[in-house]
Amino acid sequence: MLVKSRMSKYPLTIDPDESLSDAHAYMREQKVRHLPVVKSDEKMLGLIAEDDLLKAEPSSATSLSVWEIHHLLMEVKVKSVMVKEVITTTEDTPIEEAAHLMLDNKIGCLPVIRDDKLVGIITESDIFRTFMELFAAREKGLRITLEGPNKAGELAKVTRAVADEGGYISACGTFNLEDTTKKGITLKVRNVDREILSEALSKIEGSSIIDIRKM
Amino acid sequence: MLVKSRMSKYPLTIDPDESLSDAHAYMREQKVRHLPVVKSDEKMLGLIAEDDLLKAEPSSATSLSVWEIHHLLMEVKVKSVMVKEVITTTEDTPIEEAAHLMLDNKIGCLPVIRDDKLVGIITESDIFRTFMELFAAREKGLRITLEGPNKAGELAKVTRAVADEGGYISACGTFNLEDTTKKGITLKVRNVDREILSEALSKIEGSSIIDIRKM
Amino acid sequence: MLVKSRMSKYPLTIDPDESLSDAHAYMREQKVRHLPVVKSDEKMLGLIAEDDLLKAEPSSATSLSVWEIHHLLMEVKVKSVMVKEVITTTEDTPIEEAAHLMLDNKIGCLPVIRDDKLVGIITESDIFRTFMELFAAREKGLRITLEGPNKAGELAKVTRAVADEGGYISACGTFNLEDTTKKGITLKVRNVDREILSEALSKIEGSSIIDIRKM
Amino acid sequence: MLVKSRMSKYPLTIDPDESLSDAHAYMREQKVRHLPVVKSDEKMLGLIAEDDLLKAEPSSATSLSVWEIHHLLMEVKVKSVMVKEVITTTEDTPIEEAAHLMLDNKIGCLPVIRDDKLVGIITESDIFRTFMELFAAREKGLRITLEGPNKAGELAKVTRAVADEGGYISACGTFNLEDTTKKGITLKVRNVDREILSEALSKIEGSSIIDIRKM
Repeated sequence: MLVKSRMSKYPLTIDPDESLSDAHAYMREQKVRHLPVVKSDEKMLGLIAEDDLLKAEPSSATSLSVWEIHHLLMEVKVKSVMVKEVITTTEDTPIEEAAHLMLDNKIGCLPVIRDDKLVGIITESDIFRTFMELFAAREKGLRITLEGPNKAGELAKVTRAVADEGGYISACGTFNLEDTTKKGITLKVRNVDREILSEALSKIEGSSIIDIRKM
Repeated sequence: MLVKSRMSKYPLTIDPDESLSDAHAYMREQKVRHLPVVKSDEKMLGLIAEDDLLKAEPSSATSLSVWEIHHLLMEVKVKSVMVKEVITTTEDTPIEEAAHLMLDNKIGCLPVIRDDKLVGIITESDIFRTFMELFAAREKGLRITLEGPNKAGELAKVTRAVADEGGYISACGTFNLEDTTKKGITLKVRNVDREILSEALSKIEGSSIIDIRKM
Repeated sequence: MLVKSRMSKYPLTIDPDESLSDAHAYMREQKVRHLPVVKSDEKMLGLIAEDDLLKAEPSSATSLSVWEIHHLLMEVKVKSVMVKEVITTTEDTPIEEAAHLMLDNKIGCLPVIRDDKLVGIITESDIFRTFMELFAAREKGLRITLEGPNKAGELAKVTRAVADEGGYISACGTFNLEDTTKKGITLKVRNVDREILSEALSKIEGSSIIDIRKM
Repeated sequence: MLVKSRMSKYPLTIDPDESLSDAHAYMREQKVRHLPVVKSDEKMLGLIAEDDLLKAEPSSATSLSVWEIHHLLMEVKVKSVMVKEVITTTEDTPIEEAAHLMLDNKIGCLPVIRDDKLVGIITESDIFRTFMELFAAREKGLRITLEGPNKAGELAKVTRAVADEGGYISACGTFNLEDTTKKGITLKVRNVDREILSEALSKIEGSSIIDIRKM
């Protein structure tokens, strides 16, 4: 799964010469918290987040009054508060790397760049949706979590056992456990009866079902 | 994977009688954006997010001046601005359901409740970390994405092929494709040579490698 | 001295449908702190002071954030924050009554009304300028302060003594003293020598010069 | 009339190390708009006006958010925003000069200094009260305004005419007219009948009554 399959194409953008006030109004109206800053030629010049809008050059303020702030919000332009060193990604980047970048930099979105041009944006919400998809969270079925030996071939045994009972695996994910000699597997399975599947899986040597539920 | 294995235990909390000003200072100092509101008996009374702090009863303000705001931030208490109808989860909830709740309600965290008491908190960052773990994003290996027929038994074939070459699968995830007759699989594999693995996987009927890279 | 001789005619006004933001900008530009609110027919509808502009319906605010305030300043109109029960005066009012009204009500200006229409405005600065005029503060001369018996005829004696020496009185003011059997008189006099004037005034029975200075 | 007879003695002061927030609260509580800044030895270090409190070093602010402002108001000290080059006066200054200083510098008060120490304060309100006193505004009587030739001896004639009828002059002020060959006189008189006084004054050659009213 690469960024290109989960990003939003043709993202909303904003002109660098808009005022902070207009940028904020546009974000509210469009219900977004970030906007890439783009001039007519599609080259991305920067990024503004809702929070950045208040980072408007307080050094140019002459007082702390609401009038001063009000004035700055109308006068100061997006280009003078936007982040210029934007962390970006590309279409062919694995999605987990995009998530990694967001987590490490505490940012909520990544503009997607091809040949210096903005071609998409991937956000926290896209990561959340993909996360749910990995668990087939919106599909019905049996959700089973197993623990087994942390070694080559174990996942093949488990998936084989499901297939042998005619089960269809709509999601499969593996994860680490505190006991590093073991590994966890979460499956979402349909087209098979709970009792039959339980029995089949419990026959796998070294593995045990630690949670099973109908969802 | 259930909430209990990925939540933070013993989360920071705040007293309902703290001022908004003190609540904000505490959040900044602790670098958190949400705090469950708890009285001495551990019963959770509400939740405050950084953004909520400014929702302080503007109706009780008599002007829009910074002095009025300043005064309210020092006088108004957490209990009068906290969200009282908090969306919560439990330790035994599947993690994808927790993610689902956060996405649908546009919230950044979920307090985890047991017997009316707060026992943990799970946040966006926890979901991001789990997401990366599902892809074994921090482990080295070959990252392979395949497309194959969307039917029972396909995942078993793929994992078997890897196992037969001695490969260790550190991550496995399945995902939907636009073409619903097909399904995607992303694997992270180590202990096997790229050429050998490619050849083995390409022998699986109906499947094709659409991306392979060393990470 | 009546209000009409010291007021400003044709005062600046503002339309009731202007925004608070525009009203503030106009006040700053024109360097005024108050504006009568007038519709096309010259009937005064209210008065706004710079400070009133921040009394903008905080009850209609949904948060204390600067964005909310910013929004209200642009959206809320002058008519919804103006003072409607305006304290006014007329052209034929003695100026000391106008001063009395301003002092008692802690207000900095009084619109001047004739037949329900706004014909002028009198401000603190007008009172200050008149105050200085009463002392001929901007004219050169001898400034003398005397104390004498608080009874009829005393002022006539003093002014006669000055006139007899050929002195021209450019200002004359009387004031009360703690000792209520006495009264103070301050004069500004020119065209007479200090020694000659002192001697002439010191001959008035019961009176004594308590201060004399060339200004 | 000198500053010492109309100033307030022992004015309220504030310590230079108080926060802006505390200074504001104190001003509100005491209903003053200015405070001299004084250390224990009574030497005046500066002056703060309510408006100055918001001139708090916005250059040290890192954002325009209300939290930043809130923080600065609690952290920044009076000494860093007070006006250090204070315009002051002395006890022996004529009151009209004090008014002149306030008008020209658009300031609302003047600290009164003796030997580098603060001994009083004179404010706009003191000027207003003195203004009213000059007109005996709070005393009952006939208020008469006359116009007469702008030359020496005229005031003596007018005051003599009043005295000859047994009238007591509780206030007397002279003022300029647009026609500089003439001068205006306003008197407040009691103990004499309106008709008798009118007749007496109208006999003065060159003078005419332009307004007479009972107050």
